[in-house]
Amino acid sequence: ELREAVTKLLTVTSNELAGKHLVITAGPTREAIDPVRYLSNHSSGRMGFALATAAQRMGAHVTLVAGPCQLPTPAGVTRIDVVSAEQMNTAVMGVIAEADIFIGCAAVADYRPTHVADNKIKKDNDAMHIALVKNPDILANVAALAKAPFTIGFAAETNDVAHYAQDKLQRKKLNMIAANDVSDTNIGFNSEDNAMLLFWRDTNNTVQQQALARASKSAIAQQILQQAAKLLSNNQ
Amino acid sequence: ELREAVTKLLTVTSNELAGKHLVITAGPTREAIDPVRYLSNHSSGRMGFALATAAQRMGAHVTLVAGPCQLPTPAGVTRIDVVSAEQMNTAVMGVIAEADIFIGCAAVADYRPTHVADNKIKKDNDAMHIALVKNPDILANVAALAKAPFTIGFAAETNDVAHYAQDKLQRKKLNMIAANDVSDTNIGFNSEDNAMLLFWRDTNNTVQQQALARASKSAIAQQILQQAAKLLSNNQ
Repeated sequence: ELREAVTKLLTVTSNELAGKHLVITAGPTREAIDPVRYLSNHSSGRMGFALATAAQRMGAHVTLVAGPCQLPTPAGVTRIDVVSAEQMNTAVMGVIAEADIFIGCAAVADYRPTHVADNKIKKDNDAMHIALVKNPDILANVAALAKAPFTIGFAAETNDVAHYAQDKLQRKKLNMIAANDVSDTNIGFNSEDNAMLLFWRDTNNTVQQQALARASKSAIAQQILQQAAKLLSNNQ
Repeated sequence: ELREAVTKLLTVTSNELAGKHLVITAGPTREAIDPVRYLSNHSSGRMGFALATAAQRMGAHVTLVAGPCQLPTPAGVTRIDVVSAEQMNTAVMGVIAEADIFIGCAAVADYRPTHVADNKIKKDNDAMHIALVKNPDILANVAALAKAPFTIGFAAETNDVAHYAQDKLQRKKLNMIAANDVSDTNIGFNSEDNAMLLFWRDTNNTVQQQALARASKSAIAQQILQQAAKLLSNNQ
């Protein structure tokens, strides 16, 4: 908390993102199995909320599309609360036309149950199974738009972090990806800290990278946004 | 919050549970699929925490075994944090020998994935399925102990509430069950309020019932504990 207070004092509001509209997703999604059971992903929402806070301080107009997480809405930020991946996709698509930058920071569930039971499922069997279908890929959907914003993805990996992140950058046609190793309990998920590997494609379409050393999520957020603002101004 | 403050003022600490040891479970459990994905149940933990708070005020020594929920530990209560149903079962079994009353208020996941992947599962298929096995039934395990405490269960149902609750009371050999209709969004889950149907077996093994009208979870908690204290003193 001391560090957070110092960070706040050192954070001068800048205008690096003045006039830009950012759409940021944060938190997990929950995919209903029945009215009481669901599938989800670990995510406190802190990294996405830190990005929203930092972007607003850098002069941006920020729309934060948040899955279920118990965090206060950052000052000056427009928040849309959703539960499932389909709801998040609909909310993002409803606001994306105005966006200059899209940051997909939410831990979106890749799959949802094929069938959602209206009533609590009564199961007396020793075993059961849940059939799942793929959820919409919000990040790929945004990057594939005819007028796609500058699109930043996140990759939470437990192994071969750099490999998977670069693959995702190319495959989903992202402008930038921030990757971290969630198997390291000092960073990620419910931690206050994070450490990231940033990858982006330069004007020659060559992949560049930068390591962001362990720091508070708000300091990491600021570095990601500064790099994005630089690339965005190069592209224009 | 005003109502909560008034409730607090009107709550005189009593000694109806003086010298009694209560073990209470609260919140959901999370069942890992891999390091980032899990299965869970909706539960804010509020009802279980309200029971712990009320029991402590009524003079009891309280051990609260809590699944993942973001609630402060009630004053004077011993808290054990767990994640999965198996961890909750182990924690309960470790303290149950001293208990006079056990309240299973947690929304324990009935099933867990058969196999937990060490690394994040990479899935490129349009469909997948998760195989599940049954979790330990903590409530039934406690009620089946040779020296079972007075055992209170909860039933969160979406339909045929009274039917399922009475069936659970008999089948799991509980002393009392508190049932609510979680399809009513005014009560249960993330609501501050609750309304309950209480069922118990009297000294002639006949099922008796009492409806607890909609009230704050702390008022409902107090009524459940008063009824339990009365039955417990009748049994002795």
